[in-house]
Amino acid sequence: MDEQAGNELRSAVAWRGGHLEAIDQTALPERVSVLELRTVAEVVDALRRLAVRGAPAIGVAAAFGVVLGLDERRPDGAGAARGVLEQVTAELEAARPTAVNLRWAVRRVAAAARDGADAGEIRRRALDEALLVLEEDQVSCRRMAEFGRVELTGRRRLLTHCNTGRLATAGLGTALGVVYAKAGAGEPVEVLASETRPLLQGARLTAWELVDAGIPVTLLADTATGAAMARGMVEAVLVGCDRVARNGDTANKIGTYGLAVLARSHGIPFYVVGPLSSFDPDAADGDAIVIEERSPDEVRNLGSLTIAPAGAAAWNPAFDITPAALVSGFITDAGVLRPPFAESIPGALSRR
Amino acid sequence: MDEQAGNELRSAVAWRGGHLEAIDQTALPERVSVLELRTVAEVVDALRRLAVRGAPAIGVAAAFGVVLGLDERRPDGAGAARGVLEQVTAELEAARPTAVNLRWAVRRVAAAARDGADAGEIRRRALDEALLVLEEDQVSCRRMAEFGRVELTGRRRLLTHCNTGRLATAGLGTALGVVYAKAGAGEPVEVLASETRPLLQGARLTAWELVDAGIPVTLLADTATGAAMARGMVEAVLVGCDRVARNGDTANKIGTYGLAVLARSHGIPFYVVGPLSSFDPDAADGDAIVIEERSPDEVRNLGSLTIAPAGAAAWNPAFDITPAALVSGFITDAGVLRPPFAESIPGALSRR
Repeated sequence: MDEQAGNELRSAVAWRGGHLEAIDQTALPERVSVLELRTVAEVVDALRRLAVRGAPAIGVAAAFGVVLGLDERRPDGAGAARGVLEQVTAELEAARPTAVNLRWAVRRVAAAARDGADAGEIRRRALDEALLVLEEDQVSCRRMAEFGRVELTGRRRLLTHCNTGRLATAGLGTALGVVYAKAGAGEPVEVLASETRPLLQGARLTAWELVDAGIPVTLLADTATGAAMARGMVEAVLVGCDRVARNGDTANKIGTYGLAVLARSHGIPFYVVGPLSSFDPDAADGDAIVIEERSPDEVRNLGSLTIAPAGAAAWNPAFDITPAALVSGFITDAGVLRPPFAESIPGALSRR
Repeated sequence: MDEQAGNELRSAVAWRGGHLEAIDQTALPERVSVLELRTVAEVVDALRRLAVRGAPAIGVAAAFGVVLGLDERRPDGAGAARGVLEQVTAELEAARPTAVNLRWAVRRVAAAARDGADAGEIRRRALDEALLVLEEDQVSCRRMAEFGRVELTGRRRLLTHCNTGRLATAGLGTALGVVYAKAGAGEPVEVLASETRPLLQGARLTAWELVDAGIPVTLLADTATGAAMARGMVEAVLVGCDRVARNGDTANKIGTYGLAVLARSHGIPFYVVGPLSSFDPDAADGDAIVIEERSPDEVRNLGSLTIAPAGAAAWNPAFDITPAALVSGFITDAGVLRPPFAESIPGALSRR
């Protein structure tokens, strides 16, 4: 359960002196390949092609991206350094439109750095803040995991979607962090993992993490989740989030909404697990959240395999919106937020 | 729209004098490969590995399987021929447990043949009956297509699951037959096809058929169906069926149930399209329907691609049960059956 065991990179991202290390998640489960990211362009590329993914990990990687930008472009003087901060922030924010942690993290680093007296101090402050973002992510994961463990006492068979574990954060994870906490406390826990087409983060990453951790996991095609619920195989659904609006509407990996509708129709509790940094105070509701649409080729192909005929169109939204009314509770680093979310969420955000 | 254009095999199965021809659906969309099936074992193998699939096509193939059994085993005398009928019927029925058309077709052929005076007449009767099963399937497809076209007047954007077209029948198809009828009548129609993991019949077969027919098709990951409904992209859902119980509970490709729950929660009509031969008078409700569970490797692998780590378990039911209450209507070859199904279904079955 230690996120950083020796030199082995055990979670999605880590800072190694002058560069960022990240597990190339597109190579899993076939091999563990560690990327060394040294430029803003490399960070943006890793985010775009989902080598680094998961809202909290995206935030951490982007925070260090700001530092890499300063190192790479070597601004002469405080004014120039502030210019680089602005530029780099904009480049990083454009990498993925939906994960609010990205925007939150880069703006936070830039804001902490910009008042440094000279380029050197600006760089030092940026690094300190990025390291703080990483550390806070690890602490926040532990807090969510523990709040979730208590909330889910007595519920053993948990269904999750996409990947929300140590590959999605700099720490234990969000939804999977709760699973790790249950296992760590010696409580029985079994995971049903939906494979999560098109990019199969459930099959490739969640199954890999849990097998690695020795936690029982059963993989399901996304089509089998309804049948699993109907057969009583699911005691709670836990998912992560890419952006939560002030009213509780939640953007998360495509397919989350369908799971929420199914969970409700079976009376199964449906929890969203995420740090307060995934909540967007500027979004009144789900309509305010931009949904990234990715290439149709992700649907038409599967890795090297072509699975659809040329000439077939495909629609490939990366996320969907789960209306707040379908969420039983938000397990956050500030505790479990309960309905009515239009009160509990702004309350938690104002206390942060 | 002609199912049998010259020598080209345009639907799933056809009888060619002494053997059965079938498109090997596991090779699509990469290549159109035609199998020649000459023995019962070859038919069983084709059914098991889903080279031939789709409830009506399974029925037609199995009907000819009985004839092939007689040809292959050359019984001497009427008694021996009846023994072969029994044996072959049992072997074919065991190939797939869920599709009721299989049982219905082989029993029908055996019943029509068994009273023949000698082995020759038994074989002739079996062939006549199998040809009748095939012809009736083609007629039944045209009837469903037309009933469905009228029922869906004004509904343009249709979501479908799995493959229910000419690859699933000896004719136009069931749910896709309705699409072909709309297109044939010059009515606007667009199809959203869910890819249908694990075996991707939507991506590989439905998209292929529709591109081939020049009908607009947009492929969706199974995870994107909820988002499509939430965005108003779906005016009706049409699916096929492998077995319908007397009360209207419906076994169909895994994932159908989730679509039915989503359709209901969006107020979108949900239709099941299938011939009366897919209705099981012996099944009072869904609990009486055996659900085939297939190899976990179908979930862990995708063609030649391994997508999950060794050590991850997987659950792979081939079908799920959609409760009758979620079905708006059954579009059958005897007309559209409407709620209460516990009355309309037994009524239609008693008139057949």
